[in-house]
Amino acid sequence: MSPTRPALAAKLAGLQSSAIRDLLKLTARAEIIGLAGGLPDAALMPRERIAEAADAALRKAACLQYTESPGWAPLRAVLAERETARLGRVVPVDEVFVTHGSQQALSLLAEVLLDPGALVIVEDPAYVGALQVFRAAGARIVAVPLDAEGMRTDVLADLLARGERPAVVHTVSNFHNPGGVTMSPARRAELAELADAHGFWVIEDDPYGELWFDEPAPAPVATYSRNVIRLSSSSKILAPSLRAGWLVAPNEVCRAVELLKQGADLCGSALTQQIAADLLADRDWLAAHIDHVRTAYGERAKSLVHAVRTRFGDRVRCTDATGGMFVWADFTDGTDTTELLPRALDAGVAYVPGAAFAVDGGYRNSMRMCFTTSDADTLAEAVRRLASAAE
Amino acid sequence: MSPTRPALAAKLAGLQSSAIRDLLKLTARAEIIGLAGGLPDAALMPRERIAEAADAALRKAACLQYTESPGWAPLRAVLAERETARLGRVVPVDEVFVTHGSQQALSLLAEVLLDPGALVIVEDPAYVGALQVFRAAGARIVAVPLDAEGMRTDVLADLLARGERPAVVHTVSNFHNPGGVTMSPARRAELAELADAHGFWVIEDDPYGELWFDEPAPAPVATYSRNVIRLSSSSKILAPSLRAGWLVAPNEVCRAVELLKQGADLCGSALTQQIAADLLADRDWLAAHIDHVRTAYGERAKSLVHAVRTRFGDRVRCTDATGGMFVWADFTDGTDTTELLPRALDAGVAYVPGAAFAVDGGYRNSMRMCFTTSDADTLAEAVRRLASAAE
Repeated sequence: MSPTRPALAAKLAGLQSSAIRDLLKLTARAEIIGLAGGLPDAALMPRERIAEAADAALRKAACLQYTESPGWAPLRAVLAERETARLGRVVPVDEVFVTHGSQQALSLLAEVLLDPGALVIVEDPAYVGALQVFRAAGARIVAVPLDAEGMRTDVLADLLARGERPAVVHTVSNFHNPGGVTMSPARRAELAELADAHGFWVIEDDPYGELWFDEPAPAPVATYSRNVIRLSSSSKILAPSLRAGWLVAPNEVCRAVELLKQGADLCGSALTQQIAADLLADRDWLAAHIDHVRTAYGERAKSLVHAVRTRFGDRVRCTDATGGMFVWADFTDGTDTTELLPRALDAGVAYVPGAAFAVDGGYRNSMRMCFTTSDADTLAEAVRRLASAAE
Repeated sequence: MSPTRPALAAKLAGLQSSAIRDLLKLTARAEIIGLAGGLPDAALMPRERIAEAADAALRKAACLQYTESPGWAPLRAVLAERETARLGRVVPVDEVFVTHGSQQALSLLAEVLLDPGALVIVEDPAYVGALQVFRAAGARIVAVPLDAEGMRTDVLADLLARGERPAVVHTVSNFHNPGGVTMSPARRAELAELADAHGFWVIEDDPYGELWFDEPAPAPVATYSRNVIRLSSSSKILAPSLRAGWLVAPNEVCRAVELLKQGADLCGSALTQQIAADLLADRDWLAAHIDHVRTAYGERAKSLVHAVRTRFGDRVRCTDATGGMFVWADFTDGTDTTELLPRALDAGVAYVPGAAFAVDGGYRNSMRMCFTTSDADTLAEAVRRLASAAE
């Protein structure tokens, strides 16, 4: 007798898997050029430097033991220094909290900041990892569209004027996933002003900020207001398997996150955090390494955009390649990207249909393309295949 | 204006920090002999073998990338083999799920198996990491006492006969933390029968099972019923910083945990999971290594128990040292261990008062002592100091 099993089945049915993750299982065939994934290029990760740091860490036993819930102290210290430079104000160590990737920061923050039914504003199209977390927290989710300057803060202001009272506004401020755009300085200032005036938290989710191609990303939203919680990660600049993300938030928020982290998984890995600290503290090496990644991604991104524009002309409108890992493209002729996908897979190319990122439906003519793991020729071939599928 | 701040303060007040963790901050002074901690001995962790495995893993880029949410496939495979041997039935890989330490397994299982208000039965004294998770899940918690044979299944049977319907019964079946006892085979069979008859899940939390001193732990509760979810970890036999725990559960439970893991932190570390897989698959080396840890801990445990019995006689009753990391002791003369603690710290010894593990109060005369990180002479000196404080 298992009377708990039907309850489990109901719970399972209520949980949503990531549509992208499920799609990736179907598109892992070797002959398909994958623009669907969202992975950084493992070939660009600093394997030898990580091996050196691992070797150094493993000369002492300290890297094997449990570590503190807020993170290994020297990692927090180097992050505090980096964030101090980035934000232009002194960021004390107790305002830095290390998480198991920035996804865990999102998940713990949702628990700390949201009661069931609380209103969360997200961008549309949305980062699906955030949607998943906010939905699981039982939040009411309202979407504000993106345009070329990032979140439409005028639409947000209208919502606030109509009496909506969000607990949290989530933004991927730099090189948006999936939208590809970066929030303009004016919008950043306006978002911060609204946060201060209405007392909501902004979660500024910034994993891609250092991956700019031609010019650095604007100053973070967090430079404009103390109601901003900043999230970032070493996954895109070093390696995902270090599982070193972090949040920068007022001490009261960090202490609440700490209590939840104890129950969630006690603490992170002293070994991988020590490796991350070693690499992040090695300033000259790090600057050269990030520059190397940035250059490679920039070339790939521009190749992809060039191929799309050359091959499709006015039929597809796509974002400029200014940074990050993704290009967002819209068919202007009504082509439905969800319907196109099986033909694209037959032609040997995969992407993620825009509908996967839609909060309330829509984006049927859009798609997200990831350029990180293919060279220029492969990207050109991918676009050729896409064009043949779309004929 | 920050209207969300009062909500945060209320939430903070509602969260309970681990009393032990807070205590440890006070007792970290070098001159204090620490029996309060719950850490394995870093000096016994296989640092060189881990360095070798790290070096091997870091020869390829695969260990740097994101990995699958249920864990790095070769780690799941070796765990499935080990659990197959332990449970005496074929455990398929899709019934093994790797978590960020077994604390994360508890936390994700609480989300999967419990609705707010669901009844959870725990042992009293209780593993505080479990209490913290079940409380956070909004469960109603009822405690069943331990005796020398482990959980009092007769008390559980009475609760069930009176109509209580638990969703989950949690047990630390081997070398209990903090109680020191191991559930007898007869009790295991009875617990499994009750689970089958009443359809609740048993969470068999077993991080210490391989750390037996004189004879192996009995067959797991999971050998008696498929309503048992088994949890274990590499933290106590290899190193906590690998953050490799796991659960063994029916496929439907693993798939629900997978969806939650995606939101919680996407995936574990391919690097530390690859290291864990390497060491766990190295059978002869592993057997010799665990034997080494077991022997060292066994000697320490017996020294501690001997010192307590010699020094206190009938005034303190303590568990036999049969395995794990802890000895549980009761003052028979009414000494209040919470009141004694400041004097003990002054005398230079720290322990955790029993009250810290009590579900509904009690255990005022009890204490938990961890013997893992001190040699025999130091443990004897700790007991001498404790006796002087208790005079």
